[in-house]
Amino acid sequence: MIIVMKPKTKQEEIEKIRVRLSQLGCEVRDIKGLNYHIFGLIGNTNLVDPDRLLANEGVEKVIHVQEPYKIANRLFHPEDTIVEVAGRKIGGGNFAVIAGPCSVESEEQIACVAEAVKAAGAGFLRGGAFKPRTSPYSFQGLREDGLELLKLARQKTGLPVVSELMSVEHLPRFIEDVDIIQIGARNMQNYELLKAVGKTNKPVILKRGLSSTIEELLLAAEYILAQGNNQVILCERGIRTFEKYTRNTLDLSAIPVIKKLSHLPVIVDPSHAGGIWWLVEPLAKAALVVGADGIMIEVHNDPVNAKCDGQQSLKPERFASLMDSLKELAKIEHKNI
Amino acid sequence: MIIVMKPKTKQEEIEKIRVRLSQLGCEVRDIKGLNYHIFGLIGNTNLVDPDRLLANEGVEKVIHVQEPYKIANRLFHPEDTIVEVAGRKIGGGNFAVIAGPCSVESEEQIACVAEAVKAAGAGFLRGGAFKPRTSPYSFQGLREDGLELLKLARQKTGLPVVSELMSVEHLPRFIEDVDIIQIGARNMQNYELLKAVGKTNKPVILKRGLSSTIEELLLAAEYILAQGNNQVILCERGIRTFEKYTRNTLDLSAIPVIKKLSHLPVIVDPSHAGGIWWLVEPLAKAALVVGADGIMIEVHNDPVNAKCDGQQSLKPERFASLMDSLKELAKIEHKNI
Amino acid sequence: MIIVMKPKTKQEEIEKIRVRLSQLGCEVRDIKGLNYHIFGLIGNTNLVDPDRLLANEGVEKVIHVQEPYKIANRLFHPEDTIVEVAGRKIGGGNFAVIAGPCSVESEEQIACVAEAVKAAGAGFLRGGAFKPRTSPYSFQGLREDGLELLKLARQKTGLPVVSELMSVEHLPRFIEDVDIIQIGARNMQNYELLKAVGKTNKPVILKRGLSSTIEELLLAAEYILAQGNNQVILCERGIRTFEKYTRNTLDLSAIPVIKKLSHLPVIVDPSHAGGIWWLVEPLAKAALVVGADGIMIEVHNDPVNAKCDGQQSLKPERFASLMDSLKELAKIEHKNI
Amino acid sequence: MIIVMKPKTKQEEIEKIRVRLSQLGCEVRDIKGLNYHIFGLIGNTNLVDPDRLLANEGVEKVIHVQEPYKIANRLFHPEDTIVEVAGRKIGGGNFAVIAGPCSVESEEQIACVAEAVKAAGAGFLRGGAFKPRTSPYSFQGLREDGLELLKLARQKTGLPVVSELMSVEHLPRFIEDVDIIQIGARNMQNYELLKAVGKTNKPVILKRGLSSTIEELLLAAEYILAQGNNQVILCERGIRTFEKYTRNTLDLSAIPVIKKLSHLPVIVDPSHAGGIWWLVEPLAKAALVVGADGIMIEVHNDPVNAKCDGQQSLKPERFASLMDSLKELAKIEHKNI
Repeated sequence: MIIVMKPKTKQEEIEKIRVRLSQLGCEVRDIKGLNYHIFGLIGNTNLVDPDRLLANEGVEKVIHVQEPYKIANRLFHPEDTIVEVAGRKIGGGNFAVIAGPCSVESEEQIACVAEAVKAAGAGFLRGGAFKPRTSPYSFQGLREDGLELLKLARQKTGLPVVSELMSVEHLPRFIEDVDIIQIGARNMQNYELLKAVGKTNKPVILKRGLSSTIEELLLAAEYILAQGNNQVILCERGIRTFEKYTRNTLDLSAIPVIKKLSHLPVIVDPSHAGGIWWLVEPLAKAALVVGADGIMIEVHNDPVNAKCDGQQSLKPERFASLMDSLKELAKIEHKNI
Repeated sequence: MIIVMKPKTKQEEIEKIRVRLSQLGCEVRDIKGLNYHIFGLIGNTNLVDPDRLLANEGVEKVIHVQEPYKIANRLFHPEDTIVEVAGRKIGGGNFAVIAGPCSVESEEQIACVAEAVKAAGAGFLRGGAFKPRTSPYSFQGLREDGLELLKLARQKTGLPVVSELMSVEHLPRFIEDVDIIQIGARNMQNYELLKAVGKTNKPVILKRGLSSTIEELLLAAEYILAQGNNQVILCERGIRTFEKYTRNTLDLSAIPVIKKLSHLPVIVDPSHAGGIWWLVEPLAKAALVVGADGIMIEVHNDPVNAKCDGQQSLKPERFASLMDSLKELAKIEHKNI
Repeated sequence: MIIVMKPKTKQEEIEKIRVRLSQLGCEVRDIKGLNYHIFGLIGNTNLVDPDRLLANEGVEKVIHVQEPYKIANRLFHPEDTIVEVAGRKIGGGNFAVIAGPCSVESEEQIACVAEAVKAAGAGFLRGGAFKPRTSPYSFQGLREDGLELLKLARQKTGLPVVSELMSVEHLPRFIEDVDIIQIGARNMQNYELLKAVGKTNKPVILKRGLSSTIEELLLAAEYILAQGNNQVILCERGIRTFEKYTRNTLDLSAIPVIKKLSHLPVIVDPSHAGGIWWLVEPLAKAALVVGADGIMIEVHNDPVNAKCDGQQSLKPERFASLMDSLKELAKIEHKNI
Repeated sequence: MIIVMKPKTKQEEIEKIRVRLSQLGCEVRDIKGLNYHIFGLIGNTNLVDPDRLLANEGVEKVIHVQEPYKIANRLFHPEDTIVEVAGRKIGGGNFAVIAGPCSVESEEQIACVAEAVKAAGAGFLRGGAFKPRTSPYSFQGLREDGLELLKLARQKTGLPVVSELMSVEHLPRFIEDVDIIQIGARNMQNYELLKAVGKTNKPVILKRGLSSTIEELLLAAEYILAQGNNQVILCERGIRTFEKYTRNTLDLSAIPVIKKLSHLPVIVDPSHAGGIWWLVEPLAKAALVVGADGIMIEVHNDPVNAKCDGQQSLKPERFASLMDSLKELAKIEHKNI
């Protein structure tokens, strides 16, 4: 950690800070520049709170040198983490395809979509039971009944299921009924929820918040990891920008960056990112070639009558044709799909 | 609601959409332009899901004419909502000052700050017991013990207390111990939490999410209002932009805009917005003159040793001098402070 | 164009607007909703200024139905535009590779890089002579001398050259010396410059501004097109977001969107977008699979001693290996590279 | 300047960097941490290009300690710069009011607005002759004729005039006809234009770019200052965010920040920031209380027929009433208005 003192700070104030720093359990070194006096803190600086240092009038900036996350950090865990669910692997050269409707609507609907995505080659079934909707007047999901229908679809197809958890109180039910728990973008910094899933041993898909930095995503993952659950899969799903044509802006550079910084698998959700069905195919293909460990795609047998996100859902035929393209690309990129 | 069809859509597809629209319980009108066929939907369009319409291949855009929130909408409730807490009013020409430390740290600390802000003229005491922190390794608050200390401070000073609720499971405790429940920016779209506080009759301060639009903030408020709790106070606390010098960018234009769109009171948190103590005073004054109904300010007796946000906390003396400036401005602006 | 009147507007004000609208040379239709009165304007609404309508107190919003650009609009020009430069095609299934150093530094340097990128299969040589630098103290380019050296490199390799124009006063020189004129992101809305290049018949690469929407990019292109020059190639080079790890956030969804809205070719600059050399390869590959018509890549024989952007430049060997990957992908995607 | 080496970098690479650094004319110090080796560069690091250092494989980050601008930096010029135009002062406790129409439209219009704003107490007349418009089909200004009409208005009222310069080729005309040259937001990084006005001795208002950081604004100012012209006035006019209700988001925190970092005067343009006339008054008042040195306001005698920006223009009566409020606030804030 680097602490830069304000120019023209009195020697006495500098010494006061030196004393403070030395009480933090780290070694203190310094560099005296022309205008700036700089301290370097050596040791475990994870527990040093930069805000507290900044509260000293003489301190100009505090700069982290080491990343603030530890368990998620590739520096201390160089090999890829591979998450295994019902015999299927995510990460480490395996490209996972998670597909299904935005929300579970009926037994027929989820069964029909589940069969279709399985036939096309998807490895996992997604389906929302609890739905976070911007408006309280929008369809909020079938809730517990949705989970029940998901289980039926799993039974029929053998596909492990992914569904979004929105509150700690539903966790026991999710542990029992769901194979991968999804934490949505809006809950990425719902820390009580993160801690709660961290105490389970369920695989978790953690979606990047709409305006979260990569560092914040990794720190949110660290909340889960620090509780003992190391089955975390990160998910890029678009960030908010000033561009209005697409719902969000898919940040594909985040994939190679995250893979550099962390050993956790990272997947892409092109359906929510663009918000338009005809953007899903090009973005899914791009996700594969930039190095993602999988994708999550919305598929619906009847998008026009879907209870949510119909405009961004693929019909089963289009999904099948996307799978063909992905398989071709996976060969070139040496990924197992 | 306006539905714009894609140019060159076949008549037959247009008729199909007309039939669909007429089944939504609204009246359908149309305008045929040179390249575009446009439908107008008249009636209660709040229940019409634009995404479902967009899933039709012939539909180009769907445009809301009416705001998607109803109970929060000033159109249907022209007079200002005034929230009353322990005889103190927020909204309707009253300027509320909420002050206190970022987090409750000890009995002495909270008592000392509480006395100081009361002496300077604050009407409410803030203090975090449960703290949402970006890193799992940062101080997470005293939790239940913090609430206990807050109660002691209330007893001593008579100031009603505000504290942040992070999970539904702590709600019963908050109903008993706290006068105003705060929902933090990171939980603005934690819908299960919003519904839960909506079922209580506690006043709620709802902070705008880091990248939420004004419309989304009002829809989040609508979640609370729709459950029957109309004691909602909105709070602007800075949005995320590319600017790095300040922690966030305080969006002061949002104040007059929100007051135009909604009847709910709206306050400003200049401490979190800028993230630097010397920005608090100018931004607090600006909040008053743009028409805010109050401010929420971090005050700490010993910022350098604060367990969080020391760098943005005012010392009691500075807070007192800020109060003097605010009182002077309040006179000009005809606000009760 | 749709004009929405404020709720509760008096009939008399509505009639006043109707009269105004009817004077604009368009047909006026209306739809009377429960709270809103809506006008539809039919005809050539490109010349109608929405701001002027909004200045009427009774008007709530003005919504464009038709895109505001005409010549760039695919609606009126369905087939792809193909720009041809020295027998090389950009657009319409051809994938152009433009490569070279950020800036021309010396005869040896530009010759060396030019030979290397040619050998690897690039079709065009880029090289900055006039450099827009954030700091006035950074290297500003060799200016006229740089153009001279570029010409020598073209002579040796036969590669057409691309260089950035920063001011109208240098245009005559560029017309003579350069094959494609580049307008940089910072000058995307330098309208006098756009008009000036619009009056030439030189191909132009127009880079998207750092915070420009796709619509604004197409309107900037329209400035050039409207002057008679239809040789415009658009370039996505990353937009500004809150993410700090990468220099900018490459918006790859913009590629399929632009190709839907416009017939102009669109290329991608992954070097400037990410700002880090190891991001160039994955992003370049992603650009190809999302449907871009080409890429622009920074290559330098000695990045460590480059006078600018060394950190994002590929060495010739890496560029050659990237070309191999691109050729493989081009086969699958049926692109000529 | 701080240079952080990648963890696990070999000693030999570290030594190579040390040698490179020592050739830059600065003193090199180092701190060896647990995982990171850190170099501190002492001396004039303004000429050291961080990108070139980053091009070395072993270098992880390069961190500026000293601000990259020098002449604009308050550190080296502690007292406020005061710009004087025709006996009127901007900066140093003086609050300048610049008002007038978005664009000059006719002799009557500019004369009428000029008289009105003078009567209300404005000190300067603004009026666009060359207009940067997003669409090539929008009114582009009266150009040279507009300058002529501005001069007539100046003659009649004695108000110094401000107008926007869009291209170097018009500079001689502006030097003769205009009292303050405005560089618009879209041209903030049009470096050839900045250099050109830097060679004159005309006062310049430099508007912050739509997505420029405060640091970039100060570096753009540095381009002008470095050429010898120290009459620079900065202008905050709203930045681009995801919020759609307002045209841009006015960044009022930027005012105290800029005044901390620089000695240059800084004014606010609330008309362009919000894009709505009823936002102008609250934002103008807020600008004064956060410490701005002035405001620039659009005023039009007939907004409904204005050739541009009618929706954000104040009528003369409203402007006069705004002036009354500002005078009252100026008294409290000890500003000369």
